[in-house]
Amino acid sequence: MNTDLQDFSHKRFNILTGEWVLVSPHRAKRPWQGQNEAVSNEVRPAHDPNCYLCAGNTRINGEINPDYKDVFVFTNDFAALQTDSKTFSVDNGLFKAESEQGICKVICFSPDHSKSLADMAVKDINKVVSTWQKEYTELGSNDTINYVQIFENKGAVMGCSNPHPHGQIWSQSTLPNEIIKKEKEQKEYYAINKRSLLGDYLAQELEANERIIYSNNDFVVLTPFWAIWPFEAMIVPRKQYNDISQISVTESLAFADAISAITKAYDKLFSTSFPYSSGIHQAPTNGEDNSHWHWHMSFYPPLLRSATVKKFMVGYEMFGSPQRDITAEQAATRLRDLI
Amino acid sequence: MNTDLQDFSHKRFNILTGEWVLVSPHRAKRPWQGQNEAVSNEVRPAHDPNCYLCAGNTRINGEINPDYKDVFVFTNDFAALQTDSKTFSVDNGLFKAESEQGICKVICFSPDHSKSLADMAVKDINKVVSTWQKEYTELGSNDTINYVQIFENKGAVMGCSNPHPHGQIWSQSTLPNEIIKKEKEQKEYYAINKRSLLGDYLAQELEANERIIYSNNDFVVLTPFWAIWPFEAMIVPRKQYNDISQISVTESLAFADAISAITKAYDKLFSTSFPYSSGIHQAPTNGEDNSHWHWHMSFYPPLLRSATVKKFMVGYEMFGSPQRDITAEQAATRLRDLI
Ligand SMILES: O=P(O)(O)O[C@H]1O[C@H](CO)[C@@H](O)[C@H](O)[C@H]1O
Ligand SMILES: O=P(O)(O)O[C@H]1O[C@H](CO)[C@@H](O)[C@H](O)[C@H]1O
Repeated sequence: MNTDLQDFSHKRFNILTGEWVLVSPHRAKRPWQGQNEAVSNEVRPAHDPNCYLCAGNTRINGEINPDYKDVFVFTNDFAALQTDSKTFSVDNGLFKAESEQGICKVICFSPDHSKSLADMAVKDINKVVSTWQKEYTELGSNDTINYVQIFENKGAVMGCSNPHPHGQIWSQSTLPNEIIKKEKEQKEYYAINKRSLLGDYLAQELEANERIIYSNNDFVVLTPFWAIWPFEAMIVPRKQYNDISQISVTESLAFADAISAITKAYDKLFSTSFPYSSGIHQAPTNGEDNSHWHWHMSFYPPLLRSATVKKFMVGYEMFGSPQRDITAEQAATRLRDLI
Repeated sequence: MNTDLQDFSHKRFNILTGEWVLVSPHRAKRPWQGQNEAVSNEVRPAHDPNCYLCAGNTRINGEINPDYKDVFVFTNDFAALQTDSKTFSVDNGLFKAESEQGICKVICFSPDHSKSLADMAVKDINKVVSTWQKEYTELGSNDTINYVQIFENKGAVMGCSNPHPHGQIWSQSTLPNEIIKKEKEQKEYYAINKRSLLGDYLAQELEANERIIYSNNDFVVLTPFWAIWPFEAMIVPRKQYNDISQISVTESLAFADAISAITKAYDKLFSTSFPYSSGIHQAPTNGEDNSHWHWHMSFYPPLLRSATVKKFMVGYEMFGSPQRDITAEQAATRLRDLI
C-alpha cells in the first residue's frame, strides 16, 4: 500500500469522469460542532394506511394501487419529464436551451412498508433486478428515449419523502451530464485499447486488493480509488456487459446478492437504516455502437462519522472539487469487516 | 419572454461550464411530504464566550483571538491543505493521484457574533472585500499557490458549524474541477471573439431584462439562465476584470453594495437568515495569460419553498444532471420584488 495516500493531502483522478477529488487524510481529526441529522429508528408497520405506495391505498391523483405481491411499477404522478411535452429549442446568442421529453417511473421494491433492500431476501431483491432489466429494455425501445437512469433515494436526508422501499427511473431523450462524461472516457479508452476501461480497472483493483469490500462469482463490490462520498461503493460485473439486460439469470442473482451484502454492511456501520442515493450507469439506448460501455451500480451515502453526522458537500466542494477526509482504503476496510 | 421555457420541460446550457441543467416548470406543484429543515431564528449575542471565532476567545489549538475590530484572518486550525505537505505522485496504471499543497484560511467578517453579511453596513462589507483582495494577491504571489478559492458556507444546513459571520479561503497548487471547466469555456470564447464570454453574456442579459435582480453603476446581480439552485444568483462586474484585485476603490464599494442587496433580499424571501454557499471564481494565480477570465461571485442557496423546505440534489441529480422546478425567470422576479 502507498502510505503517502494515507498521510498527505492529494487529489485522485476519476478515470470514468475525467475529474478529480481532493483527499485530506489528516483532517479526519477535526471536531464536529455543526448540524446533526435526525435519526429515525422507528419500527414501521408492514402496511401503513397513510402511505401512498402501500398496496390497495389511493394515490394523490385518485388512482388505487393494486394489491401487489412483490414489485409494483407506475408512472410518477409528478413526473419531471413527460412524453407529450412540447418540442422546442432556444438558440439565442448565449442563451441555449432544448426541450426534453421523457418518462419517469416509480418502482416499489416490496409491498412490505417496513423493509428496505437491506432487509429483503436475495430472491426478492432479484425481482427488483428483473424489473430494472425489463424497464430498461422497454423504455429504451421507445424512440424518444435515449437514456434510462435507474436510481434510489433512501432516507429523509437524501430527499426521500416516503420510507416505503422504492426507487425511481427517469428516462429521457438526451444524455445527462454524468453520462456524457463517462461516455467520453470509456469510448476513448476502448478505441485505443479495445478493452473495457472498467474491466481493466477491476483487474487492477483485484490485484491490489486494498479497496475490495465483497465479491462473488460474477460481481465485485469496491470503494473506487476516486470515491467522493465517505462510504461510497461501486458494484461492478466481472464480465463486461453494456447494460443490465445482458446479464444471465445466474448473474442476476449474484447481482442481487452483491446489493444485499453492501446494503447490510451499510446498516451495520452506524447501526442505522443507512441513507444513500444509488444509481446504475449503463449504455444509452440511442441505437449507437455502445460496445465501450461497462455498466455498474454506485452508492453515494452522505454519512461520515455516525448516524447523525454527514459530510457536507458545500462551499469548496461546489466551487472547487469534491473533498473527502477518510481515505477510500480506510472506508473499504471498515465496510469489509462488517460482511 | 419565451413562454415555452415557463411551461415545458427542457434543459439549459451553462456557457461557463459546458454542462446542462434540467428544468421541469410544471413540477413546482408537487406536494412536499419529506424532510423539513430546522430553522434557527434565535437572537444571538454580539459576543459569545463559547464561540471560537469571537474576539479575545481561545481557539481549539490554544491560540487566543486578538481583540479585532473589523475583519480577522487566520490559518484554518484543521486545514484541508498545507504548504509543508509531502510532494508525491501515483501513476500506477488506472490509479492516478497527485499530492496537493495549499493554504486554508478563515476570515471573520465582523467581531459582532450576531450579524451576517445581510445585517452589515455596506462600508463594513467593503472591509471584507478589501481583505479578499489582499488575500487573493498575497496567497497568489506564493510560488506553490496557483488558484485561490474564496467561499462562505452560511447556515447549519450548509455544513457551517459556527454562526459567527465568517468565510474561508482554500488556496492550492492545482486548478480544481470547476475552474478547469470555466477556464476551458472562457478561453475558447476569448480566442475566437477577443471578448469576454461573461461580458457578452451580461450585455445580452441586460438587453433581455428577464433575470436581472439588481444593478448599480459597476455590478449586476442576476439569476443566470442556467441556474441550478432554486434562488441561485450571480454578481458580475460590468467591466471585464480577471480578478478582484483589479477593481477600483469605487467599484469595491459597489461590489459591497451588490452583496448587501442580494443577501438582504434572501433574508426577506422566507423571513429567515437565508443559508447558502457563496464563492468567487476568478483567474488562477499561475502566472499564465489569464486575459480570458471575467471574475464573478455566485450564491448557491438550498431553500426551495420556505425556510424549512430545501431542494435535494440527490439521485437523478447525482447520477444524471442537476434538476430544478421553478424557472430562473420566476426566481429572479421574486428576488427583484424584494429589493
Ligand atoms: O471547514 P468547515 O467549516 O469545518 O467545513 C465545512 O466546509 C468545508 C468546505 O466547503 C467542507 O469540506 C465541510 O464538509 C463542511 O462541513
Ligand atoms: O422524486 P421525489 O422523490 O419527489 O424527489 C426527490 O428525488 C428527485 C430526483 O433525484 C429530486 O429531484 C428531488 O429534489 C428529491 O426530493
